[in-house]
Amino acid sequence: MTTARRDTYTPETLLSVAVQVFNERGYDGTSMEHLSKAAGISKSSIYHHVASKEELLRRAVSRALDGLFGILDEEPARTGRAAERLEYVVRRMVEVLIAELPYVTLLLRVRGNTGTERWALQRRREFDHRVAELMKAAAADGDVRGDVEVRLATRLVFGMINSIVEWYRPDGRGMGRQEVADAVVQLAFAGLRRQD
Amino acid sequence: MTTARRDTYTPETLLSVAVQVFNERGYDGTSMEHLSKAAGISKSSIYHHVASKEELLRRAVSRALDGLFGILDEEPARTGRAAERLEYVVRRMVEVLIAELPYVTLLLRVRGNTGTERWALQRRREFDHRVAELMKAAAADGDVRGDVEVRLATRLVFGMINSIVEWYRPDGRGMGRQEVADAVVQLAFAGLRRQD
Repeated sequence: MTTARRDTYTPETLLSVAVQVFNERGYDGTSMEHLSKAAGISKSSIYHHVASKEELLRRAVSRALDGLFGILDEEPARTGRAAERLEYVVRRMVEVLIAELPYVTLLLRVRGNTGTERWALQRRREFDHRVAELMKAAAADGDVRGDVEVRLATRLVFGMINSIVEWYRPDGRGMGRQEVADAVVQLAFAGLRRQD
Repeated sequence: MTTARRDTYTPETLLSVAVQVFNERGYDGTSMEHLSKAAGISKSSIYHHVASKEELLRRAVSRALDGLFGILDEEPARTGRAAERLEYVVRRMVEVLIAELPYVTLLLRVRGNTGTERWALQRRREFDHRVAELMKAAAADGDVRGDVEVRLATRLVFGMINSIVEWYRPDGRGMGRQEVADAVVQLAFAGLRRQD
């Protein structure tokens, strides 16, 4: 939760308040009035920063999407064997999800009622497709098992990763980002069964 | 969607309509008026069957919980090596989730605003705990890897399974229940990597 005072509000701090309210109340259930109360500034002050509630949504989900698509541009995601690139992308997805937890949580809850939401869903599908392509390439190399259909395997691995938003709390008491990322990579690639 | 007519309504068919409406509108966002319209019967006819909206919720989530807890009473979940019992339970969780898709979907979306919701969350935690205990026993036997903390591994496997409600559609065109159950068991226990 931001502790920014009225005179220190920036588009960035306003966004972090908005994302928190969207996640608590749902985007549809949030009014500019709710945002104004949560931020402790007037509606006209909010309109000084953004044109609409939907602009805040677009900025918030863009931040999550930029984080995710940014992974695909990183060197280890672009070069080398497909299976290693895939493993790198899975690890980085967990890291980005935790680093941008409220933004990714919002992205995963988008439902498609507005143009911005439909655009976000479309971008999510593009990202899923890019990762599925990587998995397909790894299967073609013979590094990833061929007995589970690629689209289904992608969905299940995404399901495992995305479920982290339901329980991960960055309160310093629980596990760290690296522990979670390691566990996801271990389970996704090698499974629960002990390998001797 | 049920096609039951007014004179054929039973608590069972009313429940299936209610669960669909709860899943579409959210439990909090559903009124008896919404249920009455969706069922095509008067509110007083609904009150002939149930005392309240909350009773419908309780019956619906009970059906999902009974399905899940029932697994633990099945012979292969009770006898044999812990790792095999765990694998059986994981497979059956996917089967029950798909067989009772709308009911489990509702259970997974419960938020805790009412007594019934808090009771359902408590029962879910008990189920998670039972499965975590099984995983702990399998790790103690040396059959399940020891390098991923049991609670974290349980959460990730549950995340994979529960994510199925987000995309599985029993429309006959997509994959079958067995294909999904096989994939989950393969990925959860052996991972994506091809074993040579």
